[in-house]
Amino acid sequence: MEHINAANRVAIERMLSADPILIDVVTAVDVIPELGNSKMILHAGPPITWDRMCGPMRGAVTGIAVFEGWAANLSEAEGMAERGEFDFHPNHHFSAVGPMTGMTTASQPVMVVRNRAFGNDAYCAINEGLGKVMRFGGNDESVLARLVWLRDVLGPLMAKALRSMQGDDTQGVALKNLIARGLSMGDEMHQRNVACSGLLLRELSPALAKVSTDATQLSKVLAFIGSNDQFFLNVGMAMGKAIMDPVRNIEHSTVVTAMCRNGTDFGIRVSGTGDQWFVAPVEMPEGLYFPGFTAADANPDMGDSTIVETIGLGGFAMGAAPAVAGFVGAGNASGAAVYTRTMRGITVDENPEWTIPSMDYTGVPTGIDVRRVIDTNLTPTINTGIAHREPGIGQVGAGIVRAPMACFEQALRAIATLEGVA
Amino acid sequence: MEHINAANRVAIERMLSADPILIDVVTAVDVIPELGNSKMILHAGPPITWDRMCGPMRGAVTGIAVFEGWAANLSEAEGMAERGEFDFHPNHHFSAVGPMTGMTTASQPVMVVRNRAFGNDAYCAINEGLGKVMRFGGNDESVLARLVWLRDVLGPLMAKALRSMQGDDTQGVALKNLIARGLSMGDEMHQRNVACSGLLLRELSPALAKVSTDATQLSKVLAFIGSNDQFFLNVGMAMGKAIMDPVRNIEHSTVVTAMCRNGTDFGIRVSGTGDQWFVAPVEMPEGLYFPGFTAADANPDMGDSTIVETIGLGGFAMGAAPAVAGFVGAGNASGAAVYTRTMRGITVDENPEWTIPSMDYTGVPTGIDVRRVIDTNLTPTINTGIAHREPGIGQVGAGIVRAPMACFEQALRAIATLEGVA
Repeated sequence: MEHINAANRVAIERMLSADPILIDVVTAVDVIPELGNSKMILHAGPPITWDRMCGPMRGAVTGIAVFEGWAANLSEAEGMAERGEFDFHPNHHFSAVGPMTGMTTASQPVMVVRNRAFGNDAYCAINEGLGKVMRFGGNDESVLARLVWLRDVLGPLMAKALRSMQGDDTQGVALKNLIARGLSMGDEMHQRNVACSGLLLRELSPALAKVSTDATQLSKVLAFIGSNDQFFLNVGMAMGKAIMDPVRNIEHSTVVTAMCRNGTDFGIRVSGTGDQWFVAPVEMPEGLYFPGFTAADANPDMGDSTIVETIGLGGFAMGAAPAVAGFVGAGNASGAAVYTRTMRGITVDENPEWTIPSMDYTGVPTGIDVRRVIDTNLTPTINTGIAHREPGIGQVGAGIVRAPMACFEQALRAIATLEGVA
Repeated sequence: MEHINAANRVAIERMLSADPILIDVVTAVDVIPELGNSKMILHAGPPITWDRMCGPMRGAVTGIAVFEGWAANLSEAEGMAERGEFDFHPNHHFSAVGPMTGMTTASQPVMVVRNRAFGNDAYCAINEGLGKVMRFGGNDESVLARLVWLRDVLGPLMAKALRSMQGDDTQGVALKNLIARGLSMGDEMHQRNVACSGLLLRELSPALAKVSTDATQLSKVLAFIGSNDQFFLNVGMAMGKAIMDPVRNIEHSTVVTAMCRNGTDFGIRVSGTGDQWFVAPVEMPEGLYFPGFTAADANPDMGDSTIVETIGLGGFAMGAAPAVAGFVGAGNASGAAVYTRTMRGITVDENPEWTIPSMDYTGVPTGIDVRRVIDTNLTPTINTGIAHREPGIGQVGAGIVRAPMACFEQALRAIATLEGVA
């Protein structure tokens, strides 16, 4: 197994040497030209067809079709979907990721995170805030109006600001140190991003002020970012994708390069098996529900946000975020470190630059090894938001979910076949 | 002792029912009219005369005299000080506080925190950032130029922004919940204010954008606040003063209402003994020094910032801020909670609204009881910055310092006399 260990060292070194920078906001079709070809919709998770999509995913699809002007209304969009007029693909196939339903289409603004160490870019749409939002399947006028405002106002202003930060030492917003600070401020970057959202605003706001020509718009943009504790989530996700893409296709490596869910299936990719998906039915999160909702309202687990756990944050960094433990119903806050220690059992290494002060600066568990998942019978712990199963209602809670063991079993079999041992 | 316990309950209830709001920035003389009478200088700590002032305090005095236009240069200012031309008083005598040297004079901008539950206001100057600054005795042209910019640009813009937030529900920036969030984000609000500084900027920046008429100035103001991790310290101090002033003069109460140091003496005030100072020589902090400096460079402990510990934060809230433990040389980060638990031994109660997630939401120790300090032989733990003993050099480290036991012994004797038991 020495050659596998050596391949995994290569994988870890690529992860640890990544240098992700938030550099721009662009129109999606400008960086993913395929989006201009047809009525193409990128979604969260592994590949899926309309007939197998869950409620919120369907809600988001019909909403985004109206947003793109392909349909006059939601019912027309639904008919088009049923007739197969939309071309569905996973975000992951196009250097992109998206939270929950994860819609990415031609005219949406996407944030660009560049991994400066490897030269690759990754994309994610801008976080819409809480309440009725498209990532939870929301699709009414208020949802679409917000997407229009993100496209026409916030996105372009953020782009101008980030570009104005080019050329000097900063070159946009460097994310590696920002994450390190966030970990010392109670964020795990999946269900808690309040610190990183604030740190990002601190860096962005002087540039936003410099490039803005409309004080009212500027004020609204600052208020939108400043009142959204999860604003950073989408930045962190693009960062995760930018870090993991160069880790793909390392021969013999058993390190997981992506985990994602579409609300129906959970999929993982492993470095040594390239772009193959190992897919199993997605599980139900266990967690706490907002007032008025119960587990009966919950949609199964959904979104590309598990890229955050793939790089050692989220559920893997729970020890940094005791306040999250209560929020996701994961027991006493003082026990949060147990999750981090347990996840260390399925990773190759720790990240020496992303450390947890309260654990005496232990690094977050880094590089999920398929072999260790099987050996320990422990699957990755994921901190997740819970969507209502009906489209258009939104988030109903937050909880913990495990990646299905079947994905890792399939992956191990595929590796065994490649290695000639099966 | 039942009547003392009852009096201390009153003190605690006043502390816990405080409702501090950052409402304004004003010119000091407009709210402290005595500052206009003569060459009056308010300083940190209990009363002190020029001949007993430490190096940084003297440096700040000469600098602020030049800033106020009373002297053409530092040596002229020194001569004036020696001839007794300045009228020195503690900040604490005028509803004010100041960090380190704590200079407050007529034309400086001061932030106003109103305790809405009791109607009293408290004042503190604006934090200057790190490096060569007046609070560490800095007094060269760069230091004075920054004070001019704070007076002419940042102060007035911040005032306009805060006033624009009046009238709606927010009425400035409410601080009680902001502190609660900061405690869940690794701040203890004395040596670590990065979270609260960010949370404050989030609330202020939309208003700053709305009222600004100069994009370059706005950008500079946002960058100044956003790059100063200790920006919030001075807000927290004014908040502490606003919380504690209504706790003064409760007959029979043994709760400490102020702790402060002028670099020569440490002074405390106790509720039942009113405005009397109990003073003892200040101690040297034990801590860690910035590269190139050692304990031989250190000035004794200084500043009104111990108002933060007086309300249960700073060293008392160390459990919330494991990253601070290393910064101040207080042992392993994982042991930070020990400081909080120990300080609970000298307080009357815990604060149910200011809790520490990693300690399963234990409230910060609140209301230092002079009797308990004597009984346990434990004096308050203070997280402090360390100034160079020469004026004009600045901060050289950070550490832990204890309030001198002699202050508490004097206070207990005075209480005993009042109670007729001595």
